[in-house]
Amino acid sequence: MEKIHGVLAPVVTPFTNDYGVDYDRLLEHCLWLRSHQIGIAALGTNSEANSLSPDERQRIIQALIDGGVEPAAMMPGTGACDLPTAISLTSFAVKAGCAGVLTLPPFYYKGVSDEGLFNYYAGIVEGVDNPDLRLYLYHIPQVSQVPISLSLVERLLRTYPGQIAGIKDSSGDWDNTAALIREFSAEGFDVFPGSEDFLLQGLRHGAVGCISATANVNPGPMRQLLLSYENPNADEQQAELSAVRAVFQDYVMIASMKAAIAHWRNDVVWQTVRPPLVALTDEQARALIGRLEEVGFSMSF
Amino acid sequence: MEKIHGVLAPVVTPFTNDYGVDYDRLLEHCLWLRSHQIGIAALGTNSEANSLSPDERQRIIQALIDGGVEPAAMMPGTGACDLPTAISLTSFAVKAGCAGVLTLPPFYYKGVSDEGLFNYYAGIVEGVDNPDLRLYLYHIPQVSQVPISLSLVERLLRTYPGQIAGIKDSSGDWDNTAALIREFSAEGFDVFPGSEDFLLQGLRHGAVGCISATANVNPGPMRQLLLSYENPNADEQQAELSAVRAVFQDYVMIASMKAAIAHWRNDVVWQTVRPPLVALTDEQARALIGRLEEVGFSMSF
Repeated sequence: MEKIHGVLAPVVTPFTNDYGVDYDRLLEHCLWLRSHQIGIAALGTNSEANSLSPDERQRIIQALIDGGVEPAAMMPGTGACDLPTAISLTSFAVKAGCAGVLTLPPFYYKGVSDEGLFNYYAGIVEGVDNPDLRLYLYHIPQVSQVPISLSLVERLLRTYPGQIAGIKDSSGDWDNTAALIREFSAEGFDVFPGSEDFLLQGLRHGAVGCISATANVNPGPMRQLLLSYENPNADEQQAELSAVRAVFQDYVMIASMKAAIAHWRNDVVWQTVRPPLVALTDEQARALIGRLEEVGFSMSF
Repeated sequence: MEKIHGVLAPVVTPFTNDYGVDYDRLLEHCLWLRSHQIGIAALGTNSEANSLSPDERQRIIQALIDGGVEPAAMMPGTGACDLPTAISLTSFAVKAGCAGVLTLPPFYYKGVSDEGLFNYYAGIVEGVDNPDLRLYLYHIPQVSQVPISLSLVERLLRTYPGQIAGIKDSSGDWDNTAALIREFSAEGFDVFPGSEDFLLQGLRHGAVGCISATANVNPGPMRQLLLSYENPNADEQQAELSAVRAVFQDYVMIASMKAAIAHWRNDVVWQTVRPPLVALTDEQARALIGRLEEVGFSMSF
């Protein structure tokens, strides 16, 4: 199977008013993203995946496939603090044919060693024991508080070439992204920046796309830049993407993306987030929409 | 049912060589702690509970009860990043008759609001919907990175008096512990410092005991101070407890406690920890034991 490249969205997870997973709205959203050729990185940080139970996470993977999302376009998040859950979810995703899995490090204990993290990821690879596994590491130290170091990547890649398939670098530190590309991409290790702010720069330096929250709301222009990044107006396109992202980022990103979808779908249910997150207030949502309109942003379905 | 007071141990979880939960050794350890009248706060931070799957956590609660640990002496950890898991585990523990449950806040998303944390804990209380629930909040900001503020405690206590039963304060910040006692203990909200370093000071100021890692290895002297804290030699006893703790703390606590148990039980299996933690090296273990013997510490079974 060809490795997954391009722009992927950590798809936001809609909830019903009583906080249940809204599988219908989720599928509708994913199919809309697919209509823009966006990959489906379900169950990521922006999916509130860590506010979902292991059972709910597995059911979401199955529901999307049953609903017509091609597993070859999917890179669900299957990390967990505990190995049994991570192995079980990863195994399920691989058997379901997903192009890859995106796996957080265990994030409860802090200050853990690279040795311990190596043992954890080795535990997944060996527990899953499937040559089809394409495991993408997830470096998001500002949230997980557990960084993935270059030396950890190197040791994992040497030990499990092929199965350790790449990384999402959400650190926002371009020097780290560039180092990952420089050190490992020649071995087929794929680097995805975690924000479209680095989409153009990444593509110019050897990244294979990006996995970014705002692909949930701005998929068309992001796909467009991916296709035309060698064109003369690419810097201008990048500036437009970043201007939109900056507005969403001024709020808690998950709540602001859901507020935007609720607004342009005219569907208030979309505002719902699970605790410990909170939805934008009506006032915040109005201000957000106003500012988005000022930068020429809108969504259409 | 009388509320649980005294010294509780967040019991370390033994693993077999292939990282399976070792239920037999766990039960043996808990019964030994009970022989010293130590309460069983299974599934805490020092139990590597976040390295256990929800199923394993539930099975541990059941296995301890089946093995003869009185549920009235148990305060298992039932927190989780996601509400469905936290509700399910909490509900199970309450129905099993546990004296209380100790619940971490959801710890993946950082910088969350008190509003969001209130909604989370309210979601547990209302989801469990059982008047027997005695929920103890768990404030361990250096690990969870999600603090439990005084105003959050106040709002929860006003909304769910009785069911919000107390707190374990592992911040190591005595001023915070003292404020919790001063503000809320008159309403029957019980405060447990998270370390025996504060056992004597806590008891003198209205704490109801302590929940401390090292109760796993030093239960007798901790119980003794609890019983005799008004005696003239209490400060001396406290100093001895703290001297022992200081040695364990110089290493990663979980690994050092397991190394000590392995040494004095002459049972190397006890050294095993789950990733992302790593066991002490042989050299570290020898140094630990040497230093413990220097302060007059040993274990007997």
